[in-house]
Amino acid sequence: MNCKADRGGDLDHLDWLALRSVRSVGRSQPMLSQTAEYALRAVVYLATTYPVPAPNHVVARDCNVPRDYLAKILLGLRENGLVASQRGKNGGFVLTRPADKISLREVVDCVDPVERVRECPRAVEEHCEELCPLHRFLDSAAVEVIKLLEGQTIAELANGTPRTFPHLV
Amino acid sequence: MNCKADRGGDLDHLDWLALRSVRSVGRSQPMLSQTAEYALRAVVYLATTYPVPAPNHVVARDCNVPRDYLAKILLGLRENGLVASQRGKNGGFVLTRPADKISLREVVDCVDPVERVRECPRAVEEHCEELCPLHRFLDSAAVEVIKLLEGQTIAELANGTPRTFPHLV
Repeated sequence: MNCKADRGGDLDHLDWLALRSVRSVGRSQPMLSQTAEYALRAVVYLATTYPVPAPNHVVARDCNVPRDYLAKILLGLRENGLVASQRGKNGGFVLTRPADKISLREVVDCVDPVERVRECPRAVEEHCEELCPLHRFLDSAAVEVIKLLEGQTIAELANGTPRTFPHLV
Repeated sequence: MNCKADRGGDLDHLDWLALRSVRSVGRSQPMLSQTAEYALRAVVYLATTYPVPAPNHVVARDCNVPRDYLAKILLGLRENGLVASQRGKNGGFVLTRPADKISLREVVDCVDPVERVRECPRAVEEHCEELCPLHRFLDSAAVEVIKLLEGQTIAELANGTPRTFPHLV
């Protein structure tokens, strides 16, 4: 069989070059969204200024996050009670509790939580009660990521002592 | 401090409602891209027909993946040597080796690999040599996901015996 010459089954009509146009094939996929990663940068930063409030533009500058984008993220964190805000000359955003009481999971959950697989994405009727093995595995892996985020406090990152993990496999 | 009444620092000018317009805040983020998840569905399916080729439209129907999208994914997998294709009436796509020799990582790497954090996204000069603690942690977590994918064979999913993991934290 000549893989390069043959196309296989009903694919003969497809232009090989069309492959290049697939939107996401070949891109790497970040584990967390950009929003979640920005939120983590900001909260780690606020851990270093705690309990002194830091204005949005200072956090944006020091974390290298676009100012308007960060403002919306901080408002989202505030809506979830993770940060509070103070008006005035020395105002800004401040964590509502010490950073050793905040896990990365809490921050990520405020903005873009890691997605669980709770329903069969293939819409297979028999998988309504129990997911197929592929999606059981993917959900289990998502739970592992959530646990990693849960086991890491913001304080440990702000202090420069992130956890390392045992090799899983 | 009244969190709901105050806006904090330089955020006074922001419309609170603007928060709703942030593109991704509040969405959950899948650990793998849709493309990678579709690729896994297809390869698990091809494990069940191996070594008989399956045409694209049959894989698409049985995996509940859009046909044109799947065709491009299968061509991507073929370009990476994971599947081969056969022309003709009984043609289609077939794995190039038994499914117990294919890990989920290999499939994902063909389309949308899990992203490592190799450079400081904050562009901090001192972090050129070594990442900051947050990004060290995130990279370490990405490595854990890659290892989970590496430790799981397609055959185990096709046989209905996905691995389960020890609790990490």
